[in-house]
Amino acid sequence: MPEPTASARVELRCSGSGGQGILLAATIIAEAATALGRRVVQTQSYGPEARGGASKAEVIIAEEPIDYPEVRRPDVSLVLSQAAYEKYAADTRPGGLLIYDSGLVEADPGAAGVTHCGLPFTQVATDELGKKVVTNIIALGALVARSGVLPADAVEEAVLSRVPPRFRELNEKAYRLGLRLAAGAADAETTTKDGLTPTTAPAPGS
Amino acid sequence: MPEPTASARVELRCSGSGGQGILLAATIIAEAATALGRRVVQTQSYGPEARGGASKAEVIIAEEPIDYPEVRRPDVSLVLSQAAYEKYAADTRPGGLLIYDSGLVEADPGAAGVTHCGLPFTQVATDELGKKVVTNIIALGALVARSGVLPADAVEEAVLSRVPPRFRELNEKAYRLGLRLAAGAADAETTTKDGLTPTTAPAPGS
Repeated sequence: MPEPTASARVELRCSGSGGQGILLAATIIAEAATALGRRVVQTQSYGPEARGGASKAEVIIAEEPIDYPEVRRPDVSLVLSQAAYEKYAADTRPGGLLIYDSGLVEADPGAAGVTHCGLPFTQVATDELGKKVVTNIIALGALVARSGVLPADAVEEAVLSRVPPRFRELNEKAYRLGLRLAAGAADAETTTKDGLTPTTAPAPGS
Repeated sequence: MPEPTASARVELRCSGSGGQGILLAATIIAEAATALGRRVVQTQSYGPEARGGASKAEVIIAEEPIDYPEVRRPDVSLVLSQAAYEKYAADTRPGGLLIYDSGLVEADPGAAGVTHCGLPFTQVATDELGKKVVTNIIALGALVARSGVLPADAVEEAVLSRVPPRFRELNEKAYRLGLRLAAGAADAETTTKDGLTPTTAPAPGS
């Protein structure tokens, strides 16, 4: 995807099922952007669809006051469940980036011109760190590395300021693992303008 | 204000300055409504205006999926600072309810048909509980009691599940103080259709 300019409005949507830490990932992005002096609007939905089904948390980042606070075509979509993929993936803006958990989501790259990046976040969280609970932080690292919407160190600071002290080391590891995972995933991306099946990167060390 | 029906969409906006716990108040409302099976969208803004100036956190509650997630005319506005009053008060829907901190906000009831309810939340937090930090929870209690948007006990449960165990008693007291404060404030309300100056209720015991 094209590198967003500093002045651009960027829309992000994190989606998955309840308990995957979607809201925390979005909150960390919002707080990192705020610390950088950006305008930020964050929206989350609750309700029947947020329990068990596909839930989402959205962030809009801009340099100017945000008059229209609704996300319609995310520039960057993070998708951590099949239900979320089916519900939200097609909204991703042409030219945008769709990052998904390749172990949980069977992607169908029908959306023209959306870069698909599938990485095994949950598997890496379990295999490398023994903690499935940090899947969202690994995914956040990958999102930041691949999208370039915010500087990686600013988001790392926001991660560390959000988690209790005793979990900082684990979350720092998870975040950096996500950064590295995405860096090694250049091959794993497919711009689906011609309906190519996206490949997925193996877990590191596998 | 008219009692909202169960099927109505209700828009709430909490506003104030940074550090007043506006976001927590909105989050508690959102979680209480979610626990009752409602559809809920919560939105918060960050950025320069959220540091020092007027910040806001909004909640939309409905029975049906929420297609249009932006708050334009809140049915209920909670206002905890003069800057927030000046920025947001006029948006309140005619027939709606505006609850404000009478010790911090000089209200100018120019908006026709909006019920103004001024209560000294910050003063009560300091005088009755010795903890200014629970001003938001007192205000939340008053909002729930006056607006009737959600059952008082459902919101109390959401308050208690949100705060750490050692602060539960304090927050329970604060919430119930807010409920009582609003119950005694019927006289303090002025529907400003004819530009009456709203009166404000004294602190309990004063």
